[in-house]
Amino acid sequence: MKQFVLGIDVGGTNIKFGLVDQKGKIVDRSHLSTKECISHKEKLIDKLVRGCEEIIAKNKLSKENLRGIGIGLPGLINAKEGIVYSLTNIPGWKNVPLKRIIEKKLRVSVFIDNDVNVITLGEWKKGAGKGKENMICITLGTGVGGGLVIKNKMYRGEGFAAGEIGHIPVQQAGRKCNCGGNGCLETLVGNRYLLQKAKRIFKKRDFSLEDVSKLACQGNRKAVQFWQQVGEQIGIGLTGVVNVLNPSCIVVGGGVANAYAHISGPMLETIQKRAMRVQGKMVKIKKSNLGPNAGIIGAQALVEEEIKFRAK
Amino acid sequence: MKQFVLGIDVGGTNIKFGLVDQKGKIVDRSHLSTKECISHKEKLIDKLVRGCEEIIAKNKLSKENLRGIGIGLPGLINAKEGIVYSLTNIPGWKNVPLKRIIEKKLRVSVFIDNDVNVITLGEWKKGAGKGKENMICITLGTGVGGGLVIKNKMYRGEGFAAGEIGHIPVQQAGRKCNCGGNGCLETLVGNRYLLQKAKRIFKKRDFSLEDVSKLACQGNRKAVQFWQQVGEQIGIGLTGVVNVLNPSCIVVGGGVANAYAHISGPMLETIQKRAMRVQGKMVKIKKSNLGPNAGIIGAQALVEEEIKFRAK
Repeated sequence: MKQFVLGIDVGGTNIKFGLVDQKGKIVDRSHLSTKECISHKEKLIDKLVRGCEEIIAKNKLSKENLRGIGIGLPGLINAKEGIVYSLTNIPGWKNVPLKRIIEKKLRVSVFIDNDVNVITLGEWKKGAGKGKENMICITLGTGVGGGLVIKNKMYRGEGFAAGEIGHIPVQQAGRKCNCGGNGCLETLVGNRYLLQKAKRIFKKRDFSLEDVSKLACQGNRKAVQFWQQVGEQIGIGLTGVVNVLNPSCIVVGGGVANAYAHISGPMLETIQKRAMRVQGKMVKIKKSNLGPNAGIIGAQALVEEEIKFRAK
Repeated sequence: MKQFVLGIDVGGTNIKFGLVDQKGKIVDRSHLSTKECISHKEKLIDKLVRGCEEIIAKNKLSKENLRGIGIGLPGLINAKEGIVYSLTNIPGWKNVPLKRIIEKKLRVSVFIDNDVNVITLGEWKKGAGKGKENMICITLGTGVGGGLVIKNKMYRGEGFAAGEIGHIPVQQAGRKCNCGGNGCLETLVGNRYLLQKAKRIFKKRDFSLEDVSKLACQGNRKAVQFWQQVGEQIGIGLTGVVNVLNPSCIVVGGGVANAYAHISGPMLETIQKRAMRVQGKMVKIKKSNLGPNAGIIGAQALVEEEIKFRAK
């Protein structure tokens, strides 16, 4: 009998659903807009349930061939008990026992986790960090996030808040960060700041980071320099992580990773130059190879990990 | 039958030996100078063996009541296989199978590890971080070191080099560090730099950090400010660690910890102000309570941990 996992990636604009087979192939997918229900907790939960029901019905799945549902959400998640403590930029969620709620409605095992942890699990189980005992994932986007695999296990920290690589202070007297800190890595390489900087450098109002990437590909000197600096700054932030955690692999994912060809060189050089000898020599930097599917494949990995762990 | 562990703390000036009973009490101790044998590997090993033999003979210990020997050394140590990859500031050590060498000579189980890891184990098993699932130890001295306990286990990294909290870059364009990096935490709060700074501020040539502490205790404004800045800078460095690892406890040890009363306030305030909400709220900062015995008690903890682990 074929078995599947339903992976769900909850974002600020869309909820993506993907049915994943045991080989890790996404055999069906769908998505629903989050927009009109973003500030209504109940509506968002209903949409989650409806999306599941639809894909289950369409694929004629019984309880026997659905191993579980995995959900990645942007926020602080108690992955052990399945409770959403809070969601980032989505109001109204406080200590919601989402696992229990959905399990009750669908009668299927549900596992939830922070979206970056889910991506990290995906990269570790099926992606660029496959099989590494100690690996780190950094996601570059509006926020700069991270996830940690330590001794072949996801490490979530004492309060499920570990992995915030974007909030390592790299400039003592740096810009105020959204998180309350100063000079965090995110204030240098988060999309919002990069876009401001790009608009300033290229003196254009209507301009995107994609445009800077295109220009860099065409050999535009300013654009190449722009990404070079981004790479160096990520490299400085990661130097601290590399010295403290001595991982064998760092996987770089998220939107800015589209400019990976331009940032990877300076990033690696900076780490090699600045990190301690042993740690610097040992660490490999890799581009995420799950791309936009990382959330769904990661949600599958979460379900498989949890089933394996609970079976012990 | 009473059982003991022999704990050994190898430093640049002394080798300290301590016989520890099962309650964690040091029942006998001795020390030998490292000075005349520091650059002779064989002589240093002989001294280690002789020190053990003496304390074993003096206490009339048989193999049955010596559970094992634990040794902390300043350097890069493969704790799993018992190999000294290299020692810091002690030349001539490269891939030395110290565990095997001493076991062969004394016919007792030997376990070795990096000295800061050993201190971390001591604080975690018997000291200020007792029983914490996720804790960090930072040692302040000429070097600024660190050790990590993650999910109730010592975490040593992919190449036994993890924990280098002193080498998190906190100033992008900062001073060159011994490790090869720039602007590492150690370049701001390592003893050597602090001493230079103190001499400059107090315009005295013959001056020690102890003197600055004494002045601070007497209420000298400049001395209080001096330690306040040290506390703030350690706080900034630890903010990154707190955000990334979300530990429940950080234990502060080492020489500068003598000024703990002056640095702890500013350190904690900085972390509370700069770290992310959940991580900042959750972390307790504690002073090492094993003091100069941390190395010996830690070596005992190392032996007990390894015996427990290998028995599984």
